[in-house]
Order: sequence, then C-alpha cells, then structure tokens
Amino acid sequence: MLRAVLPSRLLWPLGSGPIMSGPQTPEHTLDVHGDSSLCRKDEDIREGTQSSHRMLGFSDALLSIIATVMILPVTHTEISPEQQFDKSIQRLLATRIAVYLMTFLIVTVAWAAHTRLFQVVGKIDDTLALLNLACMMTITLLPYTFSLMVTFPDVPLGIFLFCVCVIAIGVVQALIVGYAFHFPHLLSPQIRCSAHRALSRRHILHLVLRGPVLCFLAAIFSLFFFPVSYLLMVTVIFLPYISKATSWCKDRLVGHRDPPAHNAEVFSFDLHEPLSKERVEAFSDGVYAIVATLLILDICEDNVPDPKAVKEQFRGSLVAALGAYGPHFLAYFGSFATVGLLWFAHHSLFLHVRKATQAMGLLNTLSLAFVGGLPLAYQQTAAFARQPRDELERVRLSCAIVFFASIFQFAIWTAALLRQAETLQPAVRFGGQEHAFMFAKLALYPCASLLAFAATCLLSRFSTAIFHVMQIAVPFAFLLLRLLVRLALASLRGLRHLRPAQPLRSQAPEEAQSQLLPSSC
Amino acid sequence: MLRAVLPSRLLWPLGSGPIMSGPQTPEHTLDVHGDSSLCRKDEDIREGTQSSHRMLGFSDALLSIIATVMILPVTHTEISPEQQFDKSIQRLLATRIAVYLMTFLIVTVAWAAHTRLFQVVGKIDDTLALLNLACMMTITLLPYTFSLMVTFPDVPLGIFLFCVCVIAIGVVQALIVGYAFHFPHLLSPQIRCSAHRALSRRHILHLVLRGPVLCFLAAIFSLFFFPVSYLLMVTVIFLPYISKATSWCKDRLVGHRDPPAHNAEVFSFDLHEPLSKERVEAFSDGVYAIVATLLILDICEDNVPDPKAVKEQFRGSLVAALGAYGPHFLAYFGSFATVGLLWFAHHSLFLHVRKATQAMGLLNTLSLAFVGGLPLAYQQTAAFARQPRDELERVRLSCAIVFFASIFQFAIWTAALLRQAETLQPAVRFGGQEHAFMFAKLALYPCASLLAFAATCLLSRFSTAIFHVMQIAVPFAFLLLRLLVRLALASLRGLRHLRPAQPLRSQAPEEAQSQLLPSSC
Repeated sequence: MLRAVLPSRLLWPLGSGPIMSGPQTPEHTLDVHGDSSLCRKDEDIREGTQSSHRMLGFSDALLSIIATVMILPVTHTEISPEQQFDKSIQRLLATRIAVYLMTFLIVTVAWAAHTRLFQVVGKIDDTLALLNLACMMTITLLPYTFSLMVTFPDVPLGIFLFCVCVIAIGVVQALIVGYAFHFPHLLSPQIRCSAHRALSRRHILHLVLRGPVLCFLAAIFSLFFFPVSYLLMVTVIFLPYISKATSWCKDRLVGHRDPPAHNAEVFSFDLHEPLSKERVEAFSDGVYAIVATLLILDICEDNVPDPKAVKEQFRGSLVAALGAYGPHFLAYFGSFATVGLLWFAHHSLFLHVRKATQAMGLLNTLSLAFVGGLPLAYQQTAAFARQPRDELERVRLSCAIVFFASIFQFAIWTAALLRQAETLQPAVRFGGQEHAFMFAKLALYPCASLLAFAATCLLSRFSTAIFHVMQIAVPFAFLLLRLLVRLALASLRGLRHLRPAQPLRSQAPEEAQSQLLPSSC
Repeated sequence: MLRAVLPSRLLWPLGSGPIMSGPQTPEHTLDVHGDSSLCRKDEDIREGTQSSHRMLGFSDALLSIIATVMILPVTHTEISPEQQFDKSIQRLLATRIAVYLMTFLIVTVAWAAHTRLFQVVGKIDDTLALLNLACMMTITLLPYTFSLMVTFPDVPLGIFLFCVCVIAIGVVQALIVGYAFHFPHLLSPQIRCSAHRALSRRHILHLVLRGPVLCFLAAIFSLFFFPVSYLLMVTVIFLPYISKATSWCKDRLVGHRDPPAHNAEVFSFDLHEPLSKERVEAFSDGVYAIVATLLILDICEDNVPDPKAVKEQFRGSLVAALGAYGPHFLAYFGSFATVGLLWFAHHSLFLHVRKATQAMGLLNTLSLAFVGGLPLAYQQTAAFARQPRDELERVRLSCAIVFFASIFQFAIWTAALLRQAETLQPAVRFGGQEHAFMFAKLALYPCASLLAFAATCLLSRFSTAIFHVMQIAVPFAFLLLRLLVRLALASLRGLRHLRPAQPLRSQAPEEAQSQLLPSSC
C-alpha cells in the first residue's frame, strides 16, 4: 500500500507541500491572484490538471435547472374558464405535482452523489471534464424517463429506460473514480496521502455502483415482472435519505459518536462529512434563479399581443390589449419578489453557516422543492381575473406553498442551532448579537403566510385583497426589519426592567464578545 | 476630502490592513477557511456588511437566463409540413431572430453596467441586497418591452415602456451608488481610500445616469414624435460599444497610452479596467447552462406521448410512439454535446486567461449570442424526418451557427494574444508549452463546421449523413486532441529535421521554462 503512495508523493513534492497545510484546505477555491495560487497554477499546467471550481459551478447550474424543469407541465396545465376544479383536473394536477416532487428528489440525490464524488476527486483534467459532461447529459434524461413511467405505469419501458439511465450514470462515475485513482495527483489531498488508498477506492466504487447494480436487477425484472422493479427503484432513490435519517436519529439518541480512528478510515472523512457548503449555495442559487425567471419566460413568449387581435378586439388600442394581461404581470411581480426575498433569507442564513450537515441539506432540498412550486402558486393568482369563483382555494394554495417553502428554511436554521458549535458563526448562535435579527428574518415569511391563511378563513370575501396586502407588505418589512427588531428588543428590555427578572439578554453581548475574541486575531 | 476619508479608516483599521495589501486584491472571493477570512467575517458582522460574492453569482445567473429567453419564440416558430420556407415565415423568423440578438445585446449592456457598479461597491449589506433584487426585477422586464416594440413598431407605447424600464434601472443604480458612498465602508478599497471620493462619486453617477437621462428624453419624444426616440434608444444601447471600439482602435493606431496620473484619476482604475474575469465566467456559465437545457425543457413538457394516442395510432406500442420522437432526442444529444464542448473550450481558454479586456468581453458576448442560437439549429435538424426537402438549408444553417459561435471564441484568444503579456498565462502565449494544444482546441469546431459546410456543397445528397458524422466525430476528436497535437508536432519536427531550418520549435520549450521559473517560487 505504502509503496503505491510514496512514489506519487515523491513525484509531486511541491503539490503536497502547500496543500497539506490544513486538514480541510478547500482545494477548489477561486483563484486569488496571490503567489501561492500562481505557484499552484504553474504546477497544474505542468501536470495538465485544472482547478475543478468552474466545472462544478456549471454542473450545479445544469442540475438545478433539470431539477425544476418538471414544474413546467404543472404550471402549463390548462384549466378552461367553464370547468371548475373538477375531479379529472385535480387528478391530472396531482399526478404532475407528484412527478415534479419525485423528479426534484431524484435529481437532488444525483446531485448529492456528484458532490461526494468531487469531494474525492480534487482536481480535474480534460478527460475528467469531458466525462463529467457525459454524466450531466445522462442525468438530464432522468426527468423524461420518470414522467414516461408515471404516464404509462403499466408499461415496463419507462422503468427500463430509467434503469438504463441510472446504470449509465453509474458507469460514467465509476470511470471517473477509476481514472482519478489511476492518476493520483487528481485526488483530493486527504485521499492521495492516505495509506489506505486501495481500500478507499473500493469503498467509493461500492458507493457509486450500489445504485446502478440495484437498477440492473430492476431492469432485468422489468422485462418479466415489473412491480419488483418499482420496489427496487424506490429503494435506490430513498436509500441515501433513509441511511442519513437513521444515522442522524441514532446520533441524537445514543449521543455523539467518537470520530473513527484516523488511520483506519481516513476516507470516511470525505464520505460521511457534510456536503460542501459552497456547492449547496451554488445549487440553491441555480434553483432560485430559474424559478424567479420561469414566469417571465412564459410572459415573453405568450403574452405579446397579436397585432391582428389588437386591431379587431381592442380597436387598435395596445394599452387595452396589455390591460388584459395585467394579472399575469401582477403574478410575475409577486412571484419574483417572493422568490427573491426567500433567496435573500437563504443568503443571509448561509452567510453565517460554517458547514452544512446532512439534515440541513435534506431540509434545504425540501425548501427548494416548494420554492419551485411558487410559479404555480402565483399563476393561480393570475387566474383570478377569469375565475373569481375559485379565488379562495387559490389564495390558500399560494399561502400554503409560501408557508412550506419558508418554514423549511426556518427548519434549516433550527437544525443548525442544534449543533451550533460546528455549524454556525458565533454571531447567530444563542445569545449572539445577530441571533434575534436572523430569527426575525427567517420567521417573517412563515408568519406572514400563516397570518394571510388565517385571515382568508375569517374574511373569505376579501381573500384577494389580503393576499395582495401581504405581497406588498413583506418587502417593506424586510427593509425595516433591523429597525423593527431593535424596537422589539428595546421594548422587551424595558419590560424586564419593570419587573426584577434575571438579566438574560444583557449577558448575551458579553458572551458573544468573548466568543468573538479568539478569532479576531 | 481627506478629512472624510480619515475617520472611516480609523474606525476600521483592521479592515483596511489586509485589504490594502495589493492594488487589485479581489475582495469578493470565496471564503477560504483561513484566519484572515474569519477575521474579515467577524469584522463584517460588526459592520453589518457581507461579501458580495454570492449575490453577484445569483445576479449573473438571472441575467444570463434573461439574455437567452428570447430564443424561445424563435425555436417555437411553427413551420407546418405543408408550407416551405416561404416569405412570411422567413420574415417572421428574421424578426424574431433580430429581437433575440438585440435583447441579448441590451441585457449584456445592462450586465456590464452592473459589473462596473459592483466593482465600485465592494461589500453589501441587507439594504443593498434588496436594492439589487429590485434592479434585477426591472432588468427582467426589458426583453418583454423590447419584443412589444418590435411587434408594434408604429405604436409608441413599446418604446415608452422600454424607456420607463431603463429609467427605473438607472434610479435604482443611482440609489445603490448614493447609499454606498454614504456608508464608505461598503466601497471597494481603491475608492474608499482615494482622496477624490466626491469626484469619483460624481463620475460614477454620471456614468450610471447617462443612459436613463437619454431615455427620459426618448420617453418624452415618444409621446409626440417617436422616431427620435428610436434614435436615442439606439444611442443608449450602442454607446458603450462604440466608445469601447473607438478607444481600442485609437489604442492600436496611436500606440499604448500612458496610464493616467495615479492621484488625479484613481477611480478610473475601476471604470476603464477590464471586466472582472470571475463574473465573465459566471455569466457565460449561466448562458451555456440554460442553452444546454433549453431543448430538454421542451422535450420533458411536450414529448411524453399521450396514452390515448398510443392506443389509437400505435396499437398500444410505446416503443413505436417514442420512435416518432426519435429525431427530437437526436437533436437534443447533438445540441447538448455541442454546447457542452463549446463550454469546455471556453473553460479551457479562461483557465489560462489572467484578465478579460473589453475587446475580449465584446467577442465573448458575440460568441454567446450564437451559442444561444444552437437550440434553433438543432431543432432544425429534428425537423428532418418531417420535411426532407429543406434538409440542405437546415444543415447549412446549423453549420453556420456552430461556426460563428466557435470562431468568436477563437477570436477571444486572438484578441488575448495581441496583448498576451497582461491577458494570458505564460503557458499559452506564443511559444508556451500549451500554445499549440490551445490552438487546436479552439480551432476544432470552426474547422469541423466549415468542413461540414463545404462537404454539403459538394455532396448535397448526403448532407444529413455528413452532419451526423461531424456530431459524432468532434467529441472523440476532443478526447484524443492531446495525442493528435503531439503527433502533429512530432511530424512537424521530423519534417524540419529533414531540411536545415532554424530550430524555431525546439527553442520554444526553453523559453516557456524560463517564463515559468520566476513564478514557480
């Protein structure tokens, strides 16, 4: 084993020097134009390797678009003015929403596997970049095979194609692993310098090929008895989530396990470690960006009035013709503002996050899945003008989607607070100077949507007005939030001064200060 | 002036220390988990500021999606099997393509202005993040107003709305500038520590408000004599490009100007400097990612067969039904592979680019505009099965789009080579060890598409076959490129050995080595 490691370290002595300086030096950071990065760059050129940062960003953008693509059939479900929300429409909509949610989950699982893979592979070269493109292309076909499967549940072709896709992804990923272990200077420094490299290779290949092998079995079963295939497929999709959840529960019940002995399982560092915070941010940004613009895509394509129609229906008045599209624009503004402000809350939260645990990653996925449903919600509000009868249900649906998207964001923070010492910056921990402010930022949307929902139950006649008031009030609340939080804290403090309570709040700034001191150099 | 600067520097002594270390230290880099970044983070929390990195990435993603959105009406232009490429279809298509290209240009101008603005504003706080979201929302409306303008050229409403949008963007950007100069710790260090801060503020406000003022005039003119408005609008859009081009030409004709005196025009550093390389990459990645997935968006939405149709038309055979969609999938694979490989070439090039000059930025925009046309090209090839008559024109159109997208990429490199000392890493300069390889990488697609185009002229009967051969051959050529280039270089060297020429090539590696030595620490 050691013999296999030593030559590579002797061959690249310059490389392992600066990289080894810390246990968790992120190797694929941006190129700061410092000396060390220039040094590393020249070394990269000699070795023919490249920093993988930009490739990973591109992959994140592709995967986030693919994850949200199946919301389009949902938003484009035509409900003609004559028919109400009847059974057949409801069933169609429910099927499409299920397809969207499952697709989101599947692509997120593929994305998480990709993240883990490139935590092992630290650098890339041209061959790896091309293999990664092939992997991306295969992943983009998953949503199609999945919707084929749902449209024709009795025909085994859908599940067969799905399995073929998963197997193809597995083969490409195994090729990437094999290639990287064949040229060890491509590996991340932890693995490259580990004495158990062959062991880690076997472990990683096992992880990468576990799903494809199950899918191979499913593909065979699909040819003669396909219900078994569905069972196997569900196992493949939920396996990572189940194992995550059980390990998390065990962790919380039994107490914090000791980290495994360092020399026995060096590779476990990468595989059981949290997802890279940077990539969670990039994937989330992609989802927010595509969701924010989904409605404008529709508007730009379909809502430019036809010159003939303007002449005939509106007597040549373009203003009147555009007035007919007014509700669409209102829906767009509402959707963009909500997605933008949810992004803003996510951004504020992750500024203070040190690393993202597995539970936080899962909650983030759930939040993003609901964010993807926002265009649907706001398109529902665009239909107000045509179908005032269903108004109430639509407003409630919109409120519910906003509520779930924001409450899962809040849950990310709660999950982070449970292990605040490793996951959060001192300023937002319990008693930190930004704690109350962060709480208010993340609680604003859940509270506002819950309030709006409750208000529609009491004042069902004014549901549209309530909804629009919420849409306009929340951005202003965000602007004035710091002021409002200070006022609330001051009044709380004033109340405490009136009655002789223990000074919990006044102690907090000192604690925060003392936590800040060691890191302020 | 100095009195205004000094207090802020005294108040934030920790901040100005590490930031001032270099003339162009990129302040919004990723947070490396080092000591200095922790230090800066705590300081940020005290000041209530944040690194702007993630916000800029999100803005880049939004703007790149908006820039490419108008290709959708082009790709969705229905050409029924009966009618050929007749006059009316051609005119409709030409209009839509013009709208797409102009939208791309407008959004790119807005993006460049945004980049410049956030080269001045180094850090953000919550208010700036919210103002930026408002700015993004206004920019997303530009494509719609523009297509309104083209659809109704005789109605002044379109240009009026366009002008209102531009004015709104200008007002928000002026607010951002005003806010940042009011809280100087948000400014980039060059501006913050400049003695001429008020002067630079005036200069920046002048730049930001130049377009909106012209548009205000245009909006007024649109109410009574709108042809003047169009003239003013064209001035607004092309002003930056014209000034860029003239300054570049002057530069090349008169020779390199001396840099302006440092203390007189400190702020000019940021405003006439090249675009941030990182943001050029982020914007390009966004365009490539959305273009690569545009066809799968269509496929996922429209190409899942209808269960009823399968039963009636294909006697329940799903395989036969999917076979009818075969050409669409072929088009998707071709489009994805081409976009992916063009991204790969772009990625390889920018790995070796030190900074992007204005000419390179313009060429990059043109290349991206043609990349956005690729789905159109490949959708044309999907129509083969239905309309074999127009095959030849479609193949040629596809070849032309691929050719222009790739030749502008090649031109970026040529422009960089003209000023190679500042723009390129030593390895890819003339005589560098990677020069020939980079040349081959960037020349592959222009050559292949030109060859295919020429071949269709000679062998017009086999045009489809030629096109498919090109699609399959190019990815393999990329995989084997390093080998092929080495073979070509070796054979060149062999030829030179036969006849007594001066050893131009053998001298090159030594030169490259000597260029590498100083930076290899």
